[in-house]
Amino acid sequence: MRLRSFLLSSEGWPYLLVPCIPLAVALDLAHAGSVLVFFVSAAGVIPTAALMGRATEELATRSGPGIGGLLNVTFGNAPEIIIALFALGAGLHEVVKASLVGSILGNILLVLGASMVVGGLRRDRQYFDRTAASSQSLMLLLAVAAMTMPAIFELVEGKGLPTPGAERVDYGPTVEHLSLAVAIVLMISYGLGLLFSLKTHRALFNPVREDDPDEHHEQPWSVRKAVIALAIAGVAVGVMSEILVGSISEAAHTIGLSEFFVGVIVVAIVGNAAEHWVAVLVASKNKMDLAVNIAIGSSAQIALFAVPFLVIASFFIGPGPLALVFNGFELGALIIAVLVATHVTNEGESTWFEGVQLLAVYAVLALAFFFA
Amino acid sequence: MRLRSFLLSSEGWPYLLVPCIPLAVALDLAHAGSVLVFFVSAAGVIPTAALMGRATEELATRSGPGIGGLLNVTFGNAPEIIIALFALGAGLHEVVKASLVGSILGNILLVLGASMVVGGLRRDRQYFDRTAASSQSLMLLLAVAAMTMPAIFELVEGKGLPTPGAERVDYGPTVEHLSLAVAIVLMISYGLGLLFSLKTHRALFNPVREDDPDEHHEQPWSVRKAVIALAIAGVAVGVMSEILVGSISEAAHTIGLSEFFVGVIVVAIVGNAAEHWVAVLVASKNKMDLAVNIAIGSSAQIALFAVPFLVIASFFIGPGPLALVFNGFELGALIIAVLVATHVTNEGESTWFEGVQLLAVYAVLALAFFFA
Amino acid sequence: MRLRSFLLSSEGWPYLLVPCIPLAVALDLAHAGSVLVFFVSAAGVIPTAALMGRATEELATRSGPGIGGLLNVTFGNAPEIIIALFALGAGLHEVVKASLVGSILGNILLVLGASMVVGGLRRDRQYFDRTAASSQSLMLLLAVAAMTMPAIFELVEGKGLPTPGAERVDYGPTVEHLSLAVAIVLMISYGLGLLFSLKTHRALFNPVREDDPDEHHEQPWSVRKAVIALAIAGVAVGVMSEILVGSISEAAHTIGLSEFFVGVIVVAIVGNAAEHWVAVLVASKNKMDLAVNIAIGSSAQIALFAVPFLVIASFFIGPGPLALVFNGFELGALIIAVLVATHVTNEGESTWFEGVQLLAVYAVLALAFFFA
Repeated sequence: MRLRSFLLSSEGWPYLLVPCIPLAVALDLAHAGSVLVFFVSAAGVIPTAALMGRATEELATRSGPGIGGLLNVTFGNAPEIIIALFALGAGLHEVVKASLVGSILGNILLVLGASMVVGGLRRDRQYFDRTAASSQSLMLLLAVAAMTMPAIFELVEGKGLPTPGAERVDYGPTVEHLSLAVAIVLMISYGLGLLFSLKTHRALFNPVREDDPDEHHEQPWSVRKAVIALAIAGVAVGVMSEILVGSISEAAHTIGLSEFFVGVIVVAIVGNAAEHWVAVLVASKNKMDLAVNIAIGSSAQIALFAVPFLVIASFFIGPGPLALVFNGFELGALIIAVLVATHVTNEGESTWFEGVQLLAVYAVLALAFFFA
Repeated sequence: MRLRSFLLSSEGWPYLLVPCIPLAVALDLAHAGSVLVFFVSAAGVIPTAALMGRATEELATRSGPGIGGLLNVTFGNAPEIIIALFALGAGLHEVVKASLVGSILGNILLVLGASMVVGGLRRDRQYFDRTAASSQSLMLLLAVAAMTMPAIFELVEGKGLPTPGAERVDYGPTVEHLSLAVAIVLMISYGLGLLFSLKTHRALFNPVREDDPDEHHEQPWSVRKAVIALAIAGVAVGVMSEILVGSISEAAHTIGLSEFFVGVIVVAIVGNAAEHWVAVLVASKNKMDLAVNIAIGSSAQIALFAVPFLVIASFFIGPGPLALVFNGFELGALIIAVLVATHVTNEGESTWFEGVQLLAVYAVLALAFFFA
Repeated sequence: MRLRSFLLSSEGWPYLLVPCIPLAVALDLAHAGSVLVFFVSAAGVIPTAALMGRATEELATRSGPGIGGLLNVTFGNAPEIIIALFALGAGLHEVVKASLVGSILGNILLVLGASMVVGGLRRDRQYFDRTAASSQSLMLLLAVAAMTMPAIFELVEGKGLPTPGAERVDYGPTVEHLSLAVAIVLMISYGLGLLFSLKTHRALFNPVREDDPDEHHEQPWSVRKAVIALAIAGVAVGVMSEILVGSISEAAHTIGLSEFFVGVIVVAIVGNAAEHWVAVLVASKNKMDLAVNIAIGSSAQIALFAVPFLVIASFFIGPGPLALVFNGFELGALIIAVLVATHVTNEGESTWFEGVQLLAVYAVLALAFFFA
């Protein structure tokens, strides 16, 4: 009874997808069709991501705002990063970049758009604090500015940008070293950002996160339970990611989609599914501050942490370094994401029609990526 | 006497150009020089656009805010759209795109700039509501983001952008279908925008329009009079557009201007002349809210309605579909227009020097287009 | 005693570098190594720039707000302009463009970043007036929009952009005339801006500058003393600039840096050193209004005055006109500078972490320029 009501609750539904985990493993072992393996393992990522999110939050609550914030921040994008690490290992460098851009884009357009539509349906307008949101959209702007420099470098040097769907790995040592240098600067900046948000300006960011717990009235988890859950979720995400990544290329070709499209749209949505759901949910409860924080904050996290982490990791994992050279679609999408984030946070309010427009831009981008 | 004072009033002067209408027809029939035909027919568009605007407004006032708003919105850019339809029929696809971009640019830089200069000359600064203006500049941002995707697509695919002044029509089926898909998304978004502004958030947009009537203290028109005026104006705009479009190519070559320049500067100014005048007029009366609304709102209308309407229409009219692939000047101009609109609306106030700067950028763009 | 305490004061330290002036002259005459000559003459620019700034201010205080403002504004960027004139004479056109972009970039990212870090270290957050800052970032946006048009022109015409470090001077008459036309429009706009800030809207800009004098409690200078100081500083800047410019090419090659890097980073920092120091100093005293004004205002000055002045001057000095065609790095940097300036001024507040992020972007750009 309690399990059933939990599974049908707004927070419990991802766990309905738990059976996809063993199913994906079985299908993979049985060498089932790659399309089937891809979608079942993608579905299997969702409950593990949800469990990981929940366990992190419980651990964060019990370990005080300092370490708690660090945990939240570090594990917040863990599923995406784990998938990307497996993709790096498999040499799918262009898929990794596409899924990073897709995550940023999906958060700013799809998640924020859906939140505004759902939240604005029964309300004239919704309000949120401009200050916190603006600070995060500045982070996004600056990280994106840094991320585009290697591509500008390639253009200036007269080398072309990669074409979407290409499986190019080798960009030459100069731009790979530039990418590493950019990653190190972003990483240092990220470290100082932790100092900022966990130490000197703790008050600015924590009240937002503290809104969260009143979603569930259950017993808080013990630390032991949380750690075990985190370990299980980590292993499961790893397994699912390995299967998912292993099936991407063949599945994409079979359906007739480019690897680029799969990376920028499908993998990005799967990796962020749990987060997306929470944002829409809190928007419907008129907690627009939190919804905007999740959408723009996640994007900033990806740009400031996931991107440099993966670049540095690529020097140790897989066939070669990850050069931060984005293709034309990705550059266009990043610029649009930054402009939209800046504009939206400057207003400090939203209506359902603004949400519709964000979704419309996402649809147009997805169409262009599809036609590519 | 009353006619004379009306013709010399701020609202009546466009009708001084009525004689240009029969003159243009006569010159066209007499196969007069194309430059003469071009300028006389261009002058002839102005009074018909003014009459169309006035009749629409009268009809709107008498039919209640719902239908009235719909009428205003639909017929607001009718002259531009009619000219563009004739140009599509004549295969002048690049001229159509240039005049659409020119309308957006002219509204944001020329109209808003002139409004700020005229309105700010006798005042320290002028104020306007940031909320409504910001909502429209977001519309413009999102529509422009969508409109640039086919060009990014062409660049990514390694095909070049069109050169200004080229009479290129055939871009290949892929980007034509992408343009159609973008147009459909924009059209749906526009339809939902009507629902938003006429139904769920009527209060947000209507007070602005209601400022308008106190400009004239005459008797309101009867519905019959308004419909007849609308019909006459429609026919006259059609006739003038046909003659105008028929003379563009030859006139441009004779004067030594590119068709691109004629489209992006001359046709855009003619098509918006009546609207431009109203914006400057209300700014001089310190109704800056309305002036900003006309300038940025018109641009958003063109991007969200005129552009997709013409793309869809091009599948039925003329030699081939209209691919939304803009040239480098047009892309640069669109991005500048969006950045300026966002910046200006964020401030919520203006001075005459801001107006000077907008005009200066317009002058620089016009110079660059002229040199091309 | 008084001299010693002055030299160690926050305002006096640049004068510790006075010995570099005769040293640079001596080294140059002795045909010393170009790297040594370059750095010593660069160090010699700093005290002359400081003296020039101080003398201008004293003269401005004594001549009333009208003429005073004009003096401040005209001589504000004199050192940079003098260096650039010598570089134009030597045919180092790409170095000139690089140093102009470097000045804009350095002000927005390096100076503003350092100000925010230093000012924010002991404070939760710092506040500044959005209105004045916003007006200046609009100036910057519009000037940059104008400055990018010749590059867009070259791209549209199918000619490439210059590569960084190239010593290209001849761009052909069309784009040179376009550059001249753009410069004239910017110059007219600048002249009207003087009318605006010195006549019709004097109150908006002057209070900010009046904050300044309480830094020093010494006797005000007599007009005679100020004029003599200005003359001495002018001559010294000229001498140092000639030596500096004469050593750039060889020094750059010897160290293994590109002329582009030297222009965009080193020359830009040297030319603005005194100004930079003042901005950081006032930020540490929580006068964030003035710090933002110096950083963004200087950038706007360079774009609106120094750029067109040098273009016009290039038709009379040196081997050929200065075409305003920027390379890919410069265009990217200008766009980033505009977006950051707009974003920062919209917030009206800052923290040390925002400063860190601005510095991080500057570091990334410098890295990319270094790798080029």
